[in-house]
Amino acid sequence: MSLLAPGLSLGVDVGGTKILALACDAEGASAASAQVPSPKGDVEDGGASLADAVCTAITSVAADLGVSAGDLPIGLGLPGMLSLDGVLAFAPNLRSASGSDLAALLAERLGPVVVTIANDADCAAVAEQRLGAGRGHDDLIMVTLGTGIGGGIIFGGQLLRGGNGFAGEIGHMVVDVDGPPCPCGAKGCWERYASGSAVGRMAREAAHAGRLSALVAARGGDAESVRGEDVTAAALSGDLEARVLMDEVGWWLARGIANLACVLDPTCVVIGGGLSEVTPLLIEPARAALPGLLEGGPRRQPILLVPAALGPNAGAIGAGLLARDAA
Amino acid sequence: MSLLAPGLSLGVDVGGTKILALACDAEGASAASAQVPSPKGDVEDGGASLADAVCTAITSVAADLGVSAGDLPIGLGLPGMLSLDGVLAFAPNLRSASGSDLAALLAERLGPVVVTIANDADCAAVAEQRLGAGRGHDDLIMVTLGTGIGGGIIFGGQLLRGGNGFAGEIGHMVVDVDGPPCPCGAKGCWERYASGSAVGRMAREAAHAGRLSALVAARGGDAESVRGEDVTAAALSGDLEARVLMDEVGWWLARGIANLACVLDPTCVVIGGGLSEVTPLLIEPARAALPGLLEGGPRRQPILLVPAALGPNAGAIGAGLLARDAA
Repeated sequence: MSLLAPGLSLGVDVGGTKILALACDAEGASAASAQVPSPKGDVEDGGASLADAVCTAITSVAADLGVSAGDLPIGLGLPGMLSLDGVLAFAPNLRSASGSDLAALLAERLGPVVVTIANDADCAAVAEQRLGAGRGHDDLIMVTLGTGIGGGIIFGGQLLRGGNGFAGEIGHMVVDVDGPPCPCGAKGCWERYASGSAVGRMAREAAHAGRLSALVAARGGDAESVRGEDVTAAALSGDLEARVLMDEVGWWLARGIANLACVLDPTCVVIGGGLSEVTPLLIEPARAALPGLLEGGPRRQPILLVPAALGPNAGAIGAGLLARDAA
Repeated sequence: MSLLAPGLSLGVDVGGTKILALACDAEGASAASAQVPSPKGDVEDGGASLADAVCTAITSVAADLGVSAGDLPIGLGLPGMLSLDGVLAFAPNLRSASGSDLAALLAERLGPVVVTIANDADCAAVAEQRLGAGRGHDDLIMVTLGTGIGGGIIFGGQLLRGGNGFAGEIGHMVVDVDGPPCPCGAKGCWERYASGSAVGRMAREAAHAGRLSALVAARGGDAESVRGEDVTAAALSGDLEARVLMDEVGWWLARGIANLACVLDPTCVVIGGGLSEVTPLLIEPARAALPGLLEGGPRRQPILLVPAALGPNAGAIGAGLLARDAA
């Protein structure tokens, strides 16, 4: 590591709408950061537009620190299925970069750089396990609730990446084979029941079934137009019908966690992702339901179910930590 | 390790009906073995009757080798949820020994012995991964089909035991929340669809629905009396209706494996357990269905889906290997 930026690494978190680059130390303290919009468009361009945007963010942070990009180990968190050699094999939310090798593309643009690439939920899991809500737990699952559900799995203190690097796609566990269709092609995936898009779907269904009366009235009686955001806002301000729906989503959150617990037996599950504002409303019913959904529930140690602590920076911090590990 | 039995360890596999003890070398070659019936009864006796039976099997093998039990590292595979300190926390198929510490009970009976305790499916997974059908795969799941479904998970070449030792209870992943009730208390657990008892249930349902005509006729028209064994025997002898039902069970086998693959991304899944005779009938449809059930299926490396290679000795061999590791 360069003497120009001692003890720092640079983590980049690529989201669907924005890219956050952040230089931090081993404790996650930020020395500089930059944010740029994610490239638009579904047209595959081999990752060129994404690499350009990531470079803009990286060079901005490096300039702030008075170093060059090559002076810092760089970690890059990407949404999608990453093969172990860092190729973005499948990225439904980042189609333009599908199949690309971002480390190579960054080296073309920045000169010699050391880039560590990981799945974004894996990055968040590492950050929360070492510095956040999961501190002290070696056997932990990070569940990120957003449009879908992402996951990062840490066992024995190590990130579990799987045989091809694709582990942690926990949102696509099927929990109801006859359930609603998922863009992945299956039916009844967990993320159809416990994610941002799940709240939207369940809100419409509830509205059509005569529930959520205040929200339907606010939409001029048009049940179809009730949105997930309406429900989360109403639940946060105490609307009872909206709260009941969030309780249902929380039950489904617990159902999926119980499935994961059967398989993996974590001691801690951290809930993060873009739904953070409503996470407390989901965690409370999920905590209540979970023991009853676990095989041998009463004889087990309770699983610690907690909201993420590092906020929207978790992914970038974790990417930085992984870059540090690899350096 | 004693010079009296150089290179050998003693593995014991405790099943619902019998206990197999086997002295083997690092390659799984058996030097001596003994089998005794499992103790009957659901009455909790603190593990005394089980420990007695295990001791009988162990001392028989040791006597065959002309050594004493304390001369061999002993591995004990038990059906149930084992805490990391070796206590049998929850064992629905071995209630008499629930809550017991078998290592302590064996030491009381045998004098100073070194006993390694593990879940039986974990033992089978270790054996198949090192010496059997999963050789060469560091990221592997063993699925044991019997009355229910058991599992052993190996990642990075290491057994994944979980935070409390309870990992691998894969049969209790819920795949259909409105499905048939499971003795564990949940509904629609995977093992309700892809196990010996699942074949029985699905056979009765099919018979009541007017299917499996030859089998119903053989039972004098009594649909309710059609058994899983009837279906497996008929399928093995080519009965087409029975084959179709086994294809359905095979689809469910693939459904659960796809769930596990989302979470863990194994390169190999080994199918073992008591249904071994019909495993080929299940693996064939499962192999056909699996790629279509995986997120990003066509872009992934195919998962090797293979029958276990070590037969009914796998559990005892694996227990022996784990004892060797710990010695």
